[in-house]
Amino acid sequence: MSKKIAVIGSNSFSGAHFIDLLLGSGRYSVIGISRSLEKKSYYLPYKKRKNSGFVFYRADLNKEQSKLRQILKRFKPDYIVNFAGLIEVSSSWKYPEEYFRTNTLAQVSLIKFIADSGFSKKYIHISTPEVYGSCRNATPFHPYNPSTPYAASKAGADMYLSTLIKNTGFNGILTRSTNVYGPGQQLFRIIPKTIISLKLNKTIPLEGGGKAIKSYIHIKDVCEGIILAMEKGQAGGIYHFSPDEGGMKVIDIVKTVCKIMGRDFRKSVRTVPDRIGQDAAYIIDSAKTRHELKWQPKIELEEGIRQVVSWVEENWAEIKNEPLTYSHKF
Amino acid sequence: MSKKIAVIGSNSFSGAHFIDLLLGSGRYSVIGISRSLEKKSYYLPYKKRKNSGFVFYRADLNKEQSKLRQILKRFKPDYIVNFAGLIEVSSSWKYPEEYFRTNTLAQVSLIKFIADSGFSKKYIHISTPEVYGSCRNATPFHPYNPSTPYAASKAGADMYLSTLIKNTGFNGILTRSTNVYGPGQQLFRIIPKTIISLKLNKTIPLEGGGKAIKSYIHIKDVCEGIILAMEKGQAGGIYHFSPDEGGMKVIDIVKTVCKIMGRDFRKSVRTVPDRIGQDAAYIIDSAKTRHELKWQPKIELEEGIRQVVSWVEENWAEIKNEPLTYSHKF
Repeated sequence: MSKKIAVIGSNSFSGAHFIDLLLGSGRYSVIGISRSLEKKSYYLPYKKRKNSGFVFYRADLNKEQSKLRQILKRFKPDYIVNFAGLIEVSSSWKYPEEYFRTNTLAQVSLIKFIADSGFSKKYIHISTPEVYGSCRNATPFHPYNPSTPYAASKAGADMYLSTLIKNTGFNGILTRSTNVYGPGQQLFRIIPKTIISLKLNKTIPLEGGGKAIKSYIHIKDVCEGIILAMEKGQAGGIYHFSPDEGGMKVIDIVKTVCKIMGRDFRKSVRTVPDRIGQDAAYIIDSAKTRHELKWQPKIELEEGIRQVVSWVEENWAEIKNEPLTYSHKF
Repeated sequence: MSKKIAVIGSNSFSGAHFIDLLLGSGRYSVIGISRSLEKKSYYLPYKKRKNSGFVFYRADLNKEQSKLRQILKRFKPDYIVNFAGLIEVSSSWKYPEEYFRTNTLAQVSLIKFIADSGFSKKYIHISTPEVYGSCRNATPFHPYNPSTPYAASKAGADMYLSTLIKNTGFNGILTRSTNVYGPGQQLFRIIPKTIISLKLNKTIPLEGGGKAIKSYIHIKDVCEGIILAMEKGQAGGIYHFSPDEGGMKVIDIVKTVCKIMGRDFRKSVRTVPDRIGQDAAYIIDSAKTRHELKWQPKIELEEGIRQVVSWVEENWAEIKNEPLTYSHKF
């Protein structure tokens, strides 16, 4: 019998790719839960699969948590993988209450419910290296030192989950990945935004001149890692996903996209002020994950960016009319 | 003109002593805000002062935050000192949502309001060493590693406050003190509970045999330190308050109380299971506070315990009928 997986935050970029990978393996029965109706299908790679058996439920983590709990109770998933949350740093400065309500309080409440109900074998919580603040080669033992309300709100739930794991034997796992990218990503993220700006002949705004060091990893590589963590990860394990190379400046990502698209980098960008609380670098060490789960990333950055370019091209009729900025939904 | 101080959480043991010290100096105009009506007067040392000008407002941080904000807006305090919060570890395992709602979400919301409104010169947030988890000689740079939902919920707001201070120049300060004690403390705390149990000839339950290492400091010493931090502390400063001696086992505190009261320790105690998530030790380093604020504690432990014994004696007619356990108010 196939294992049952509940994916919370199924409309998120990562959640939707994770579902696609689960369904592609043919080994899982999957439900997805999100607060909004399913996104347009070019954002949801799993939509191309016919007769996958996937079922979507709409339930808001904050406002309809009892509905969400009922769905879990009925489905009794073997594994629950939780991608839900608010994700954008600059809106977290404006609306910190919303970030703490969703990313901390609602998650604490849901995790408590899952731990108490006992129907799942394992709970996988998707976190972020931003809880560490600026870091280089951070291991999973790196201390919390968040620089933004977004990061602090993620750390809040992570810390609660860790207290449960340590003290009650709850079978929970945390994963943290460097910046993900790939086809279907939200358009305000740097890679799709750069591609679209170039196609529209608009200059690309480089925050702080693009000097912040990031580290990009293809969403498919990360999702493969999450499946391994789900299947083989130890209770209380914290699994990092990061590429082989250490990190690169945002400006170099933009240069790479310009090169792939045959555009002149210098004519394509302009500098804008840096984000508040922008950390200098997020570089994490994935040695434990590579060793313990036999995981390694496979998709080279240039190849991955070409996939995003193709995705934009294929869906250009629709994408060209979409906004490139994040808008906060209450 | 005297400076205006708003004390949030004025019914708390620490808040009430802090108000007493402020009023005693004659240099401040003080208001207090709490979610419940003022406690019985033997818990509120400031009640003995006549014509102090102190004004109490009832407003719940969670449910009536707009009322609380109106009070602050009208009073326009020079300093806001915030003691409010849920404080009991074992109830935080049962009701983590309540802890995160009050200690994280409501505080984030209030801090954002105070930072935006700009009417106060300085904001002082009362935190706890429990955010560090088990620690010995922890400096203010010690990383967050909470072991309980209570501690994690306190860390959530601390981290948000720190992001504001670092990125927006908000004039906020954090203080953390080892275990406080003194006349008027909640009866479920170890020192009053021991005194009362002895008077009632009940045995004292020692959690985990009383092996956890704590460090006790008189509430008056801490409140003097908070006034110094409020008047002289640097924006973003984290001030620790701890006694000269490094720490002692809970069992030794109970022995000291037995000695002071002339009772046989061995006949007075029984061992009960340890608390979930009980940290082995909380010992913090207050060198920075001592150096920068010229602060040092003055009251010896035995002298302080004698004060608590006297307080229990003086109010025995009422105290003997009160419960010795914490009860969670929703």
